[in-house]
Amino acid sequence: MPTPPIPDDLQDFLRQPNPCVIATLSPAGELHTAATWYDWLEDGTVLVNMDESRRRLPHMRQDPRVALTVLDRDSWYRHVSLVGRVIEIRADPELADIDGLSRRYTGQRYRDRERRSWTAIIRVDRWHGWQRGHPIGGA
Amino acid sequence: MPTPPIPDDLQDFLRQPNPCVIATLSPAGELHTAATWYDWLEDGTVLVNMDESRRRLPHMRQDPRVALTVLDRDSWYRHVSLVGRVIEIRADPELADIDGLSRRYTGQRYRDRERRSWTAIIRVDRWHGWQRGHPIGGA
Repeated sequence: MPTPPIPDDLQDFLRQPNPCVIATLSPAGELHTAATWYDWLEDGTVLVNMDESRRRLPHMRQDPRVALTVLDRDSWYRHVSLVGRVIEIRADPELADIDGLSRRYTGQRYRDRERRSWTAIIRVDRWHGWQRGHPIGGA
Repeated sequence: MPTPPIPDDLQDFLRQPNPCVIATLSPAGELHTAATWYDWLEDGTVLVNMDESRRRLPHMRQDPRVALTVLDRDSWYRHVSLVGRVIEIRADPELADIDGLSRRYTGQRYRDRERRSWTAIIRVDRWHGWQRGHPIGGA
């Protein structure tokens, strides 16, 4: 699988508010996947944010390995997958990060102001994908 | 996370030709995710099918652990995730399984008649999900 930088056209794709699924590993070694909002940051990292009760938060704290698949919101036959590691987990006490994600996806700030919000930053080590009926980067 | 059987309304959801992302583990211990067609079988297992060149096929052969997230094709804010194990990998020499998946998703048989096709059957051990803005089953 190719390493970054990701081609410009796929970075443009990742900048769109597309559906995304993230995979983590539980301390017991069980795979876990869930749909998530994400943001593609200009330094080539990925930002995700979680309510404190989400299972993937303790997973990431114990094991930084993650993978994400981003699906085209108009046709999921185009998708880009990222393999990487969580390089930072930080509290989001003012809900700035979740508000940023909420605005990106819904145009409005996040509705639940009571949640305890955590942000993870993911470094991308490899990527692969699929578009126009063909694999790109060795899916 | 709850164990099967999955509630009837969520089984109805899984019967629809929805977008799906599957996670596997590489022999080097790297997480891998990719979009996939799937079918929900009436015995509560999941069928997926792969071209022989797909990375997830050797992953499944070495390590049966998988996880899948199925997104509602109309609104990805509804989703169901499954945690399970591959219990069977079999050749699909007549392309019967990939044709079944292709008909489920596109209404037509699979266009590429040259591929070597493999089918994996997944037993579901646990599930969780999200609908109407709330987690179901402890996401």
